[in-house]
Amino acid sequence: MIKTSADSRARLGWLITPHGTVETPVFMPVGSQATVKGVTPLQLKEIDIRMILANNYHLYLRPGIEIIRKMGGLHKFMDWDRVILTDSGGFQVFSLSRLRKIQEKGVKFQSHIDGSEHFLSPELAVELQEGLGADVIMALDICPSFQDKPEQVREATQRTHRWAERCLKAQKRSDQALFGIVQGGFNMDWRKESAAVLTSLDFPGYALGGLSLGEPREQTQKMIALTAPLLPENKPHYLMGVGSPEDILFGVEQGIDMFDSVLPTRVARNGGLYTLNGRINIRNARWKESAQPVDPTCGCYTCSHFSAAYLHHLFKAEELLAYTLATLHNLSFMYNFMKQVRQSISQGGFNCFKADFLAGYQSSDEQVRIAQKQKWLENWEQRENQK
Amino acid sequence: MIKTSADSRARLGWLITPHGTVETPVFMPVGSQATVKGVTPLQLKEIDIRMILANNYHLYLRPGIEIIRKMGGLHKFMDWDRVILTDSGGFQVFSLSRLRKIQEKGVKFQSHIDGSEHFLSPELAVELQEGLGADVIMALDICPSFQDKPEQVREATQRTHRWAERCLKAQKRSDQALFGIVQGGFNMDWRKESAAVLTSLDFPGYALGGLSLGEPREQTQKMIALTAPLLPENKPHYLMGVGSPEDILFGVEQGIDMFDSVLPTRVARNGGLYTLNGRINIRNARWKESAQPVDPTCGCYTCSHFSAAYLHHLFKAEELLAYTLATLHNLSFMYNFMKQVRQSISQGGFNCFKADFLAGYQSSDEQVRIAQKQKWLENWEQRENQK
Repeated sequence: MIKTSADSRARLGWLITPHGTVETPVFMPVGSQATVKGVTPLQLKEIDIRMILANNYHLYLRPGIEIIRKMGGLHKFMDWDRVILTDSGGFQVFSLSRLRKIQEKGVKFQSHIDGSEHFLSPELAVELQEGLGADVIMALDICPSFQDKPEQVREATQRTHRWAERCLKAQKRSDQALFGIVQGGFNMDWRKESAAVLTSLDFPGYALGGLSLGEPREQTQKMIALTAPLLPENKPHYLMGVGSPEDILFGVEQGIDMFDSVLPTRVARNGGLYTLNGRINIRNARWKESAQPVDPTCGCYTCSHFSAAYLHHLFKAEELLAYTLATLHNLSFMYNFMKQVRQSISQGGFNCFKADFLAGYQSSDEQVRIAQKQKWLENWEQRENQK
Repeated sequence: MIKTSADSRARLGWLITPHGTVETPVFMPVGSQATVKGVTPLQLKEIDIRMILANNYHLYLRPGIEIIRKMGGLHKFMDWDRVILTDSGGFQVFSLSRLRKIQEKGVKFQSHIDGSEHFLSPELAVELQEGLGADVIMALDICPSFQDKPEQVREATQRTHRWAERCLKAQKRSDQALFGIVQGGFNMDWRKESAAVLTSLDFPGYALGGLSLGEPREQTQKMIALTAPLLPENKPHYLMGVGSPEDILFGVEQGIDMFDSVLPTRVARNGGLYTLNGRINIRNARWKESAQPVDPTCGCYTCSHFSAAYLHHLFKAEELLAYTLATLHNLSFMYNFMKQVRQSISQGGFNCFKADFLAGYQSSDEQVRIAQKQKWLENWEQRENQK
């Protein structure tokens, strides 16, 4: 079921799964190792989070898929009876592990934990994710890096297509939705081609992969704006690894339904707290004597029970509770933000909501982003010179 | 109000404070820096914990007492509307800080955080604790170390008595109970003298200090057995820094009403979990595939939702949730243990309960204790040789 916004390409939808129905657009907190860092499943439920992400790569290496299967599957293992999506591990093999060697049959890689050697194929990625038992599972893809030459990116994209087909064929369980992942680097033609090939394979859902890797925001946005409209309208669209409230608003506007990112939980553990006026750093001395909560308009456990001064103290004292309270706040912020996004679509006022939100929200990421852009351009030049 | 057990010197009592009534014997979890490490106040309440301990030394150094006072006091600052006891900081000055210099007027010490110089006097210890606003506050005492010569221990004990009197005189708030602390090292005569002098000062409650510092258990027990009966029967008796279930049972038997220790929370963060059969190490490979909870008889959040295998995984993966779940379990264990202690006293069966409990409980601390005993004896010999 899909309902399109009256004033943009933003859309409302419902993911219907064996562990409940999830309204989209949705943001999924990340729990790579079968835990959203620093919070209990009960605390996630108290925020009303319906869907989280876990990771096949991490869980394969530790504790091992077989153990989780024996424990009754991932839902039971981590005490999460709501919806789970597992990533295939493709991205992690290409970002975390060392000495990978890609062949047509699969990829050899070294564990980032102990250096041990492993092999992952499209068939194995599906088998392992069937062992975990998530509601949505992902095809194994190849995620090109900036340093790759154009012909390498093209080859990786085409291999991703062949692997996608093999994943579909390998699937045995009928109660899991297997999503395909569109690749193609930052080349518009290859992105188009990738969307076309994957669409022809008739997956129940589609993801955009290989974006938001540190490239300039304009570049990401160009690729999203180009590719999202090519995905089948009646199926969910998932933008992997995104992200910040600003980036999510852009994605929603382009018709994206699902997002995931470590951002809200990771920045929380570094003292970065979301507010409607942008991200603040609670470690900053200006919060030392602030008797107000971080966000007086926020109803989360953290803001309804503790002052900014207390959070500041916990971070300065490096107390574990700091990470829990900050994470609870940022996840609540993201939950409320997505709820407002959905409401605005439902009421035909998404564009207004977006403009209002962005007018108030000043991202403290701006400087980080400028630095990233500079680095990306250097990489790009380096790559061009290698040609 | 006190009710003595029919079959031992164990007693039931009630601490009546501005933040509620606490049944004794009670074990207080430690939250030195205004947080019980790794858990929220809400989680503590869900266990039904009524009273916790915080620390004047830690909070004086960070964030500073004045900030907490401005934030409405310690209860409001840390969102704990139940009972709080603050230690004066005497023990921490003598165990954590460097370069201390004790004079009659007070003690100079260096912060263990940044090396900055500070001064604490009996009057200041009371003033600071009045700023924090705990329900029970402690007199500033001097805690002799093993290396101290007998005349130093005697001098420290006598100075502790003079400081105790100054603390009483310095007290301005009438809504806080100021407890005196009996010292005297491991000398029976000085312990007796200390109990007599402090009792004559008419504190509303009395603590035994300077015990359980790594000396052999027999030595601690001898001092407790000797001193506890000398404390006024109609006032609470508090054994500071104790401890393990076994040591608490011994204390209760000697008529002790209050206990505190970092043990259950600290060992939890290292993967040590209490069970009725003793302490287990969840990091041990034997738990890797255990689908049962750590303690199937335990009704805590951790045991009623997660397998031992999941906890094992969280510890191996160094996930923050490991520390939270382990802490919740150990604090629940201690809560239930104390509840059973109280029930057994109420029913006149404390001795039976103690024997039954100890028969099942095999402490994995045994080896640690043997090593500690050896070390203590060496220190003792060293000290004897110095005479």
